[in-house]
Amino acid sequence: MEELKQQLDFIFELDRLKSVYRQTSIKSDNNRNENSAEHSWHIALMAQVLHEYAEKPVNISRVVSMLLIHDIVEIDAGDTFAFAEQQELNDQPDKEINAATRIFGLLPETQFEAMKQLWLEFEKTESTDAIFAKAMDCLLPFLQNMENEGGSWVKHGVNKLQVVNRNKHLEILTPKLWAYVCEQIDLAVKKGWLKSD
Amino acid sequence: MEELKQQLDFIFELDRLKSVYRQTSIKSDNNRNENSAEHSWHIALMAQVLHEYAEKPVNISRVVSMLLIHDIVEIDAGDTFAFAEQQELNDQPDKEINAATRIFGLLPETQFEAMKQLWLEFEKTESTDAIFAKAMDCLLPFLQNMENEGGSWVKHGVNKLQVVNRNKHLEILTPKLWAYVCEQIDLAVKKGWLKSD
Repeated sequence: MEELKQQLDFIFELDRLKSVYRQTSIKSDNNRNENSAEHSWHIALMAQVLHEYAEKPVNISRVVSMLLIHDIVEIDAGDTFAFAEQQELNDQPDKEINAATRIFGLLPETQFEAMKQLWLEFEKTESTDAIFAKAMDCLLPFLQNMENEGGSWVKHGVNKLQVVNRNKHLEILTPKLWAYVCEQIDLAVKKGWLKSD
Repeated sequence: MEELKQQLDFIFELDRLKSVYRQTSIKSDNNRNENSAEHSWHIALMAQVLHEYAEKPVNISRVVSMLLIHDIVEIDAGDTFAFAEQQELNDQPDKEINAATRIFGLLPETQFEAMKQLWLEFEKTESTDAIFAKAMDCLLPFLQNMENEGGSWVKHGVNKLQVVNRNKHLEILTPKLWAYVCEQIDLAVKKGWLKSD
């Protein structure tokens, strides 16, 4: 019963990710900000729908697991905007590693280790599974900004090169998606949603 | 490119599940109502954490896929409270099957068929995977109501027998979780959160 108690503590703790808000807004819900829990659901499903575009073998159930847990650290560390100031981006890894230790640490030892390893794999973004997962994590906000007439790009004056670099993971692993993204980036510049330099 | 267009249409459509609100409230976010997208994320993760309690073999990656899609039909059909009036519960299946056809139908044919079949399997709740998935879908709101001093049970005057029946899937498949739930139900009655008859 002690194990179950630890697992339930972790499950209750997860509730708090529903109050971590991101820069993206939800068109269908009065443009309120999106939270990291619903974002995690959305990219996990998106990865399932798009995984056949990966040109190397991807273990989709590992990718889905990664995506379900990838933002949990934000419960303690908060969400950092992808195009935030460098200082803020630099501070994030330490905050997140502490968060991973505390939050995954609520679980029994073996589950703690497995989840922390999977989260670290995502953060390092070296394995094919992690590269695909990270690509999805960048692609969805990209698509959302295109749907929202530039959304957070316009609000924060983001430029084309920043978005190109952010989506680079697509280039080798999923060239067809990369071609689509490049075309859309050009469109976003034309529309004035992204700065051209 | 036509396939990708269909897949992106489906992915955009998913955004609307973030504005389907349930009876459960989120303590950590000023007790606002929970939406079905973040709920789906939460139970998918919960299933991963608790799947070892299943006493028959469960394919956890199928269960997670089921849970990620199980509420998508609510985009058209709305969320029905588990303990709603019988007439409302009777009307739901037809609305949901039409929703499944329209929404999964946005996808290319083979993905449409696969997703609709998986959703139907969840709805029928006959396979072990579906029984485990459904058990998780009932257990999480149960736990949330316990955390919220009875939550939606109190608001709608729900009784013990309704909650026992709702969680019956746990009894054979995950007897340890069932024992925990029974103990908690007794506590809820004692606290006055559930009616005893």
